[in-house]
Amino acid sequence: MASLRPVSAAEIESLALGAWILGTGGGGSPYSGLLNMRKLYREGTVVSLMDPAALEDDDLVAVVSNMGAPLVGLERLVDPQSIYRAVRMMEEYLDRRFRAVMSVEIGGGNAIQPFLAAALLGIPVVDADAMGRAFPEAQMTSFAIHDLPMYPLTLADVRDNAVIVARAASWKWMERLSRKACVEVGSIAATCKAPRTGREVKTCGILYTVTKAIRLGETVQAARHAHADPIQAVVEAAGGRLLFRGKVQDVDRRTTEGFLRGTAALDGLDGFKGRAFVLAFQNEFAVGWLDGEPHVTTPDLICVMDSLSGEAIGTETLRYGQRVTVIALPAPPILLTPKGLDHVGPRAFGYDLDFHSVFA
Amino acid sequence: MASLRPVSAAEIESLALGAWILGTGGGGSPYSGLLNMRKLYREGTVVSLMDPAALEDDDLVAVVSNMGAPLVGLERLVDPQSIYRAVRMMEEYLDRRFRAVMSVEIGGGNAIQPFLAAALLGIPVVDADAMGRAFPEAQMTSFAIHDLPMYPLTLADVRDNAVIVARAASWKWMERLSRKACVEVGSIAATCKAPRTGREVKTCGILYTVTKAIRLGETVQAARHAHADPIQAVVEAAGGRLLFRGKVQDVDRRTTEGFLRGTAALDGLDGFKGRAFVLAFQNEFAVGWLDGEPHVTTPDLICVMDSLSGEAIGTETLRYGQRVTVIALPAPPILLTPKGLDHVGPRAFGYDLDFHSVFA
Repeated sequence: MASLRPVSAAEIESLALGAWILGTGGGGSPYSGLLNMRKLYREGTVVSLMDPAALEDDDLVAVVSNMGAPLVGLERLVDPQSIYRAVRMMEEYLDRRFRAVMSVEIGGGNAIQPFLAAALLGIPVVDADAMGRAFPEAQMTSFAIHDLPMYPLTLADVRDNAVIVARAASWKWMERLSRKACVEVGSIAATCKAPRTGREVKTCGILYTVTKAIRLGETVQAARHAHADPIQAVVEAAGGRLLFRGKVQDVDRRTTEGFLRGTAALDGLDGFKGRAFVLAFQNEFAVGWLDGEPHVTTPDLICVMDSLSGEAIGTETLRYGQRVTVIALPAPPILLTPKGLDHVGPRAFGYDLDFHSVFA
Repeated sequence: MASLRPVSAAEIESLALGAWILGTGGGGSPYSGLLNMRKLYREGTVVSLMDPAALEDDDLVAVVSNMGAPLVGLERLVDPQSIYRAVRMMEEYLDRRFRAVMSVEIGGGNAIQPFLAAALLGIPVVDADAMGRAFPEAQMTSFAIHDLPMYPLTLADVRDNAVIVARAASWKWMERLSRKACVEVGSIAATCKAPRTGREVKTCGILYTVTKAIRLGETVQAARHAHADPIQAVVEAAGGRLLFRGKVQDVDRRTTEGFLRGTAALDGLDGFKGRAFVLAFQNEFAVGWLDGEPHVTTPDLICVMDSLSGEAIGTETLRYGQRVTVIALPAPPILLTPKGLDHVGPRAFGYDLDFHSVFA
């Protein structure tokens, strides 16, 4: 790709669609971020996408995310000013300017956050993230797996509260301190994570995931346009696997400690008649059981989609009666290393299960 | 007084004794801070006390405190490095140097905190605080009553965690955000509050309270030396009033949300035989009931002292069987204004009581 290219309004639409699938239930709904982007584009904004290879080693990149519990994101809508203020606060704290901005996670609404920030800051978005999907906690990133520094972090809310975690004794401490601040301001906050150098992004980031999300969205759109099965198209295009088709029978969901936690039970339909699938989630889907047996676990991407439209369904919008299809998509290789599994395997979520990829 | 004078090791001892009385049960035990000061003085340190009138209007003053639940302070001992790091972090954040340091509250161990910081920083302690006693929350200061800015605040723990509250939407938000960080690191943390200019200290501080605490300690020491009643000496020297003498019958105490909350019931002795006194506290004593009727409330200083030695007793060290005397000391005038009572009157602590001073 060119080192810097404009992203079209149509691509932003595809990005929202694809990122919502890669969100594996979390990362927040992209919808209100998308509405903001449509408005910015109507007003003439065009955000550029930057090839990470074009970053100079000592460039500084802002790593942003809307942090919190997805359910709250449906109530407190995204305001681009919040993420703008978090990034500006980091620049003031460091007394340096950012060359570009990237998302900590390509999944869900957090794929849109760097575009909101970029639009207001007038800098490009780097074609990369640090998860290749979405995860709920700060230490669940390729940067953490590579033992990069975890601070400073800036956090801004809608009320003019602003916190800087200047130092943290570990990634887990960074998670704890930033989470408590996030919960206190209402379980949703704009954050600018530890800044990364160009060299760190190039060597420790998960690259070209913005393009991947856009292409995935385009795949769904093309299938819809051709009256083909969008889910089948996604499975084929992304090397995924269909795990279950069914109807949502029960959802148990609670917003707690800054997360959305719960389970969902599905009754089988079509080829899965008489079978049962249970999903457990902490913002994102973490484990799936087929007929009571563990069937798929994080870091494999567990995506729940509307069986007809191929639209992804978030853990906050899952509800009784939905006809859904569960698919798995392969995780980025860094997450599958022993160190990676320490950070994002099933045990990192409290499940006493070994990781067995459905792709193994 | 001279604009700058050395404080002797003997005065530090008196300060600890007097400040513990002014702490009204809170501010943390001065004991481990005092041990640190003894060591520093043995090593040759001498801290200077600065007349607030000698501050230039645009001098910058660090306002420090050890924040948290007093009971935890008995377990996690004071390390001067923590308060030193909190102040240095503020200097780096502001890119300015402090002219001097002062305590947010003269009560309890927080009277010693600025001396620890001053010893390591090589700057003087200002003879002032912002409460004239101790209070549990951030907005309970003369600075807040005067509507001065409440941010930034820096917070450091013993593990190398450090948080900056860069902005807060109100004093209550500053309290909420800093309290959550404090609770998360173990309900005790060294903090450097919003910096004050020399002009702000002179016009909005509570002045000469370090000297007041030293003199109060000297009063107790002189009475002990003369085999006189130290409590009577304190009451006379500070214009106080004796409210009750009795024995601690019951203590209900819990460390919750970063505070030490609870009640203590006293059975009358001597002239109070057959009568009952109940104290309620949130770090500090907030209300006292005599035979079931409200008798004394914050902001009057409610001080519980060992009936024999005249040593103050903190809310964390109060226990069954202690022979205690409850006295009241007058509060600084700023706390008695309508605005002051909004911040520190009984209703600010959740009691549906009007303030009636025992000195009215």
